[in-house]
Amino acid sequence: MSFLNGRFKLFSDPVHGFISVPRGLILELVGSPEVQRLRRIRQLGIGHMVFPGAEHSRFGHALGAMALMHNALTSLSEKGTDISQDEHEAALAVALLHDVGHGPYSHTLEHELLSDFQHEMMSRALLERLNRRMNGRLEMAIAMFDDTYPRSWFHQLISSQLDMDRLDYLRRDSYYTGVAEGAIGVGRIIKTLRVHPNDGSEEDRIVVEAKGAYAIENYLIARRLMYWQVYLHKTVIAGDQVLRSVIRRVRYWLEQEADELVAGASEPFLYFLRKGFSGLDVHEPDVQDAFVALDDADILFSLKRWTPSSDPILADLSRRFLERDFFRVDYQVESERLAPQALEDSVASLLLGAGLSTPEHIARDLSFYILRAQSTHEAYDIREDVIAVMNRAGRIEELSVTEDVMVIEPLAEQQVRPYVCYPKEAFAP
Amino acid sequence: MSFLNGRFKLFSDPVHGFISVPRGLILELVGSPEVQRLRRIRQLGIGHMVFPGAEHSRFGHALGAMALMHNALTSLSEKGTDISQDEHEAALAVALLHDVGHGPYSHTLEHELLSDFQHEMMSRALLERLNRRMNGRLEMAIAMFDDTYPRSWFHQLISSQLDMDRLDYLRRDSYYTGVAEGAIGVGRIIKTLRVHPNDGSEEDRIVVEAKGAYAIENYLIARRLMYWQVYLHKTVIAGDQVLRSVIRRVRYWLEQEADELVAGASEPFLYFLRKGFSGLDVHEPDVQDAFVALDDADILFSLKRWTPSSDPILADLSRRFLERDFFRVDYQVESERLAPQALEDSVASLLLGAGLSTPEHIARDLSFYILRAQSTHEAYDIREDVIAVMNRAGRIEELSVTEDVMVIEPLAEQQVRPYVCYPKEAFAP
Amino acid sequence: MSFLNGRFKLFSDPVHGFISVPRGLILELVGSPEVQRLRRIRQLGIGHMVFPGAEHSRFGHALGAMALMHNALTSLSEKGTDISQDEHEAALAVALLHDVGHGPYSHTLEHELLSDFQHEMMSRALLERLNRRMNGRLEMAIAMFDDTYPRSWFHQLISSQLDMDRLDYLRRDSYYTGVAEGAIGVGRIIKTLRVHPNDGSEEDRIVVEAKGAYAIENYLIARRLMYWQVYLHKTVIAGDQVLRSVIRRVRYWLEQEADELVAGASEPFLYFLRKGFSGLDVHEPDVQDAFVALDDADILFSLKRWTPSSDPILADLSRRFLERDFFRVDYQVESERLAPQALEDSVASLLLGAGLSTPEHIARDLSFYILRAQSTHEAYDIREDVIAVMNRAGRIEELSVTEDVMVIEPLAEQQVRPYVCYPKEAFAP
Amino acid sequence: MSFLNGRFKLFSDPVHGFISVPRGLILELVGSPEVQRLRRIRQLGIGHMVFPGAEHSRFGHALGAMALMHNALTSLSEKGTDISQDEHEAALAVALLHDVGHGPYSHTLEHELLSDFQHEMMSRALLERLNRRMNGRLEMAIAMFDDTYPRSWFHQLISSQLDMDRLDYLRRDSYYTGVAEGAIGVGRIIKTLRVHPNDGSEEDRIVVEAKGAYAIENYLIARRLMYWQVYLHKTVIAGDQVLRSVIRRVRYWLEQEADELVAGASEPFLYFLRKGFSGLDVHEPDVQDAFVALDDADILFSLKRWTPSSDPILADLSRRFLERDFFRVDYQVESERLAPQALEDSVASLLLGAGLSTPEHIARDLSFYILRAQSTHEAYDIREDVIAVMNRAGRIEELSVTEDVMVIEPLAEQQVRPYVCYPKEAFAP
Repeated sequence: MSFLNGRFKLFSDPVHGFISVPRGLILELVGSPEVQRLRRIRQLGIGHMVFPGAEHSRFGHALGAMALMHNALTSLSEKGTDISQDEHEAALAVALLHDVGHGPYSHTLEHELLSDFQHEMMSRALLERLNRRMNGRLEMAIAMFDDTYPRSWFHQLISSQLDMDRLDYLRRDSYYTGVAEGAIGVGRIIKTLRVHPNDGSEEDRIVVEAKGAYAIENYLIARRLMYWQVYLHKTVIAGDQVLRSVIRRVRYWLEQEADELVAGASEPFLYFLRKGFSGLDVHEPDVQDAFVALDDADILFSLKRWTPSSDPILADLSRRFLERDFFRVDYQVESERLAPQALEDSVASLLLGAGLSTPEHIARDLSFYILRAQSTHEAYDIREDVIAVMNRAGRIEELSVTEDVMVIEPLAEQQVRPYVCYPKEAFAP
Repeated sequence: MSFLNGRFKLFSDPVHGFISVPRGLILELVGSPEVQRLRRIRQLGIGHMVFPGAEHSRFGHALGAMALMHNALTSLSEKGTDISQDEHEAALAVALLHDVGHGPYSHTLEHELLSDFQHEMMSRALLERLNRRMNGRLEMAIAMFDDTYPRSWFHQLISSQLDMDRLDYLRRDSYYTGVAEGAIGVGRIIKTLRVHPNDGSEEDRIVVEAKGAYAIENYLIARRLMYWQVYLHKTVIAGDQVLRSVIRRVRYWLEQEADELVAGASEPFLYFLRKGFSGLDVHEPDVQDAFVALDDADILFSLKRWTPSSDPILADLSRRFLERDFFRVDYQVESERLAPQALEDSVASLLLGAGLSTPEHIARDLSFYILRAQSTHEAYDIREDVIAVMNRAGRIEELSVTEDVMVIEPLAEQQVRPYVCYPKEAFAP
Repeated sequence: MSFLNGRFKLFSDPVHGFISVPRGLILELVGSPEVQRLRRIRQLGIGHMVFPGAEHSRFGHALGAMALMHNALTSLSEKGTDISQDEHEAALAVALLHDVGHGPYSHTLEHELLSDFQHEMMSRALLERLNRRMNGRLEMAIAMFDDTYPRSWFHQLISSQLDMDRLDYLRRDSYYTGVAEGAIGVGRIIKTLRVHPNDGSEEDRIVVEAKGAYAIENYLIARRLMYWQVYLHKTVIAGDQVLRSVIRRVRYWLEQEADELVAGASEPFLYFLRKGFSGLDVHEPDVQDAFVALDDADILFSLKRWTPSSDPILADLSRRFLERDFFRVDYQVESERLAPQALEDSVASLLLGAGLSTPEHIARDLSFYILRAQSTHEAYDIREDVIAVMNRAGRIEELSVTEDVMVIEPLAEQQVRPYVCYPKEAFAP
Repeated sequence: MSFLNGRFKLFSDPVHGFISVPRGLILELVGSPEVQRLRRIRQLGIGHMVFPGAEHSRFGHALGAMALMHNALTSLSEKGTDISQDEHEAALAVALLHDVGHGPYSHTLEHELLSDFQHEMMSRALLERLNRRMNGRLEMAIAMFDDTYPRSWFHQLISSQLDMDRLDYLRRDSYYTGVAEGAIGVGRIIKTLRVHPNDGSEEDRIVVEAKGAYAIENYLIARRLMYWQVYLHKTVIAGDQVLRSVIRRVRYWLEQEADELVAGASEPFLYFLRKGFSGLDVHEPDVQDAFVALDDADILFSLKRWTPSSDPILADLSRRFLERDFFRVDYQVESERLAPQALEDSVASLLLGAGLSTPEHIARDLSFYILRAQSTHEAYDIREDVIAVMNRAGRIEELSVTEDVMVIEPLAEQQVRPYVCYPKEAFAP
């Protein structure tokens, strides 16, 4: 008897075709406010302002990760691994919920609103909240999430360097951005996974069959390409920095207790801006309620309310974001004209000339218009939680040392690219 | 020398591939607040709550219609029709701007916020607003929009039963919903268009070459399928009716001057709810400002603010929308249990039992929970502005009478499907 | 336990993705010479000379029809229809083998080599041949093919107006020709099929759920488009007529016992040309052996051997085919210049001038260069074996009378298009 | 005025959409017997016996390479590089004809029939043959092919590590095999090419803009994957070795003057088998005629004629090929059972037991059943004709040293994989 057994609802997904959502626990979770809220949070945040097709939300990704989990379990099961109905359901649940703790524009705001660490904690906290509401039916899912479930290979499918999350988002973001090179062979990869049984010395684990090694290589290269071409695209970073400046400006006024300058904004948004994460406990119901109430609409609505703010800088920054009039991102950080003093002089004269700042406040205000940071990415982390391959002789090896695979080692190096960000009007064209 | 001549910016579109946006007028229009705002308005409104992949905005559609216009003009020009650089640019402008007067959730709200008539007028008014700001550079585009430009076939490409608008949205909505049957052969259709020259008795016009007749038939059938399968999908209508009830409830309280019950909502949204269209003049700057300030975020933000309203019905309806707990749409309007009195009794007892209404107000409140209406669609309007085909003998005929084409006549009949809408809890399962 | 149960081989198919072929009977059938031979027979015969991408063979289609059968059975089974392992296997076998009796260029040659009637009989005869070799393991498959198996809905999935054969070839031919409009929603259609149980008065049968009616309409329209745009494309017919003329010329010489004029050709090909179908019995082992030995290579090889034939007409016709220098197909059969005498005069003067014929033989030879025939197609046969729909009220209706469906009736009319075929050099340009 | 200027014929290609073939020289070339013959030569030779969808011919690839050349020239021209009408046409001609010297199953037969060296020479010779027939209209195309045309960047687009040939075949083979990972971003790559002007010290050359570097990396990885996953797939090699054994067996009998054992085969095929390349001169008209007469049909037809040969080994090998009963390819060349003597003993006892050989001839015959060889591939040749990148500072660098690109160096290493090939029946399962 198949897991679905005729009791499911079909969703039409342009990426994976029809997705079957089992009735019962999984369909209830899909209907919960926590998951429905993901419909109102764009997967790529600012990304759609550079790739106009990429306006998809985290909801589709959650469904997609669940669908791939179902495919993976079906395939593993056809290869002889026993999986109980309860395990199957729990694994779908956790694939669906793995990102439920993401907030709006989280690539930007996770550094300004919730820290990265707390994002993971928030997912965990919401899992518990849902578990309570559902009378403990998520116990096994939570154990899989925490990696305390004895068959730890389930956790690998949920969170590792080759998990259903990554397989779905790469394929999905490629579909919506139109970046053909990101199109990985999800079907092929899943078909080459197997559970390598415990041989006494260590636990069962997910391994890739030798014939899948090229597809994995391709997947890591595609992932790297998507990072530099899409997620860390120059203009995405530019939008990101404008939004961060808005946040930092609002925070500044809240600290100064000049609440009237930021009035009219969304309350749950202001709640987080007031608190700062040092003051946050993801287990407090208040924090959770505010968090669940927050989505892209709050951010956009607030920015529109700030456009006519009596603080000209908050107004300018908000308008820049909404009209896509972003900063310039420049990688020539060593060039003469971008030397700290030279750049500050140019931007200061711009801000003063435009009436956005005054000599008295220019030092303070410059920090909202000049930002120095760096993009970093490593495609494959060779140090922990490595991808394991079963080589042709049947032995398990770490990916980068397996025969035939040649380009993994360089992918494990971290790439770092420093940049500086400033209004393009600071220099005459 | 090609129209683009190396001066263009590339946008990556998953539907049509790379789209070239010419620098100058067109790129400036893309950057205008009026067009950037379309990024914040979903093309299908509620549609994405049924087809989770269909979260794309009107911005991508505007670019896409412009791209198809460029392809059509290039192809017509290769077939020997002279098109000046100015005409080419004007036609791109009007394709880009043809829907700029759409507001958020317009399939729902055009009946509650702006009337359909005024939506067209609003596009026209915003074209003029942009024209003023751009010192008259949109004169020719406006003439094409108004169909006062002498070469009236340009207008046909913009607004007819076979225009770039429809070609793009069908192809695009098919891509994002994953409804394969909607995939029309846009390239093939465009390649079979030609300008049929004035023969003295009548004007130049767009005609389809005989070999394209099957593709047109397929396009009309695909369009019909998309209407009934997507745009008029049962659950889409259900969400639509919930949202309309919300609007009508808010309007009711505003008329009662009970503003405190709807407080906290977006100001531009309330502006339109207060005025009603009888009080609207799309040429007034105030109306335009409020309109341009309005997007999906205002609607969603407002609904979230109304969820804890002290009017339990407004609260209930808002929550229903956000959590996708829609009404049931039932086409068995003649069935016994849906007879007016029977249905009212069931729903009344539901509302009273749940504390949403009181015996005193039940008559009033029922109107927000029981809605009778009908879906209508005709795939092809045979009465005006027909599609013209150049038959194998070189003569121009109306599509439905041309040889080889068989299914057009029935497509010209209007389909009408009455339904009634009510909370599914009104009947025990 | 799933039907596949881990014992299968994967084939990579660009149309349906990975296809699982169960080990055992099915994989043995795939490996049989009868099925491997399908790799050497192009699905569209001459079609690839008009649509250069459409060079796919009948082998891929056989696998594809089998894959869709597997999907359909899995879906029906998830809806509660019991299907035994034996039935599942038999249905896959017959889907795989349904076209095994097709010969090379069968759209052309079925009228010249094997009659249409005998093509069906040949599939049947080869099924028996395989059954004998496999010791009766195809008994149930044969019963399904013959429609003598008690559960006659299996036969419907194999051979009806909505069978797995048609679903696969439309989707597949659309993929390979690049004709986007042929892309039907195979997945959606299969998901809306169900077995309607015997209610006492009649047998179980396959029906389409009401929500699938639009997809069926689209499928019939797409089928019609593929017929006129691809299968009956003007240039396909032109190539077809050239090949037929070659065959008729060879037959003529064989009847005249002038074997030396057609020497060097493939023996199995000459075997059929000598016999003519009146002399054929598909149950004779000799006929079967010759048939199984015959594929596209025999036809092409023979044409190349005939190019330098000492019969100038056979040489000319063979060269025309190989170099794609086809006849012209003209639908203006009533035009003056195509009147019988006028056309014969033109073509005769061409043949005589080119030294291809002599005054003595011109009457005989003209029949190889002037052909009058007609294309016919009906998209849907309303008279027998109709498509049944389960309407919203749960009642079973014939497709054309069901609510919502509007264009079926016209699709049931037969379209007939007469043409005449002749060398284009017969008229000065 | 665009190059096409309305005078072109459209071909429907499933990979690149509509392809415009300019009337005049290019359309005449497409219609020549030399190019039409490519329709009868499968692009991947044996590949389709492993990837059943990949039955496409060299004809589609020739059109595709021409289409990409047109796109590249259009894009370069939009970036300001002057290209004359004559140059444009010559470049299309040479892209179309670059592979015209390929014969049937050339990956297999280029080592047994024509040497690799002679394949290039044959293309060159056929270009000249066509040039003579067309009265010198291919002079410029030949100069581009030979790299004697002054603007040598044209040659780079035709033959280099990033030429239109490779871009088309990777994309095309990915489409037809269904190997998603091979899908490279052809459009993106072409859009990032530019002609870097001569700075006095060196010639103009094609360079990749910095932002294209990731796409190039992805292209090289995809190419490597396609080599190991498709072109050098184990079963493809296995089929290849069976076909080579057939050829070598026929050659052996021809040398022994035992022509009756190989009788009935295609004459042009035997012509090459008799001569051997030492006796071939690609400039002799006889050789060219035989070559142009040769296609897949000759090989398949001959194999079918040899299946009942009175040489049991030729019969067995031919049957193996046709029924896809290939040898086993084993990479464990160092294993004990595959040691030379052990393997010879096993295979000898198989051949003797099956009556395929006799003790007298077993030494000779073993060489047709045991083959030791190796697969080799390097994705990128760093030594000559490197890919040049224009880095962000505007300087030209070799790909592997450019910033951001990390995995190129390992791709330049040659991968070598030795194997041994033998009948799988040699070892009990």
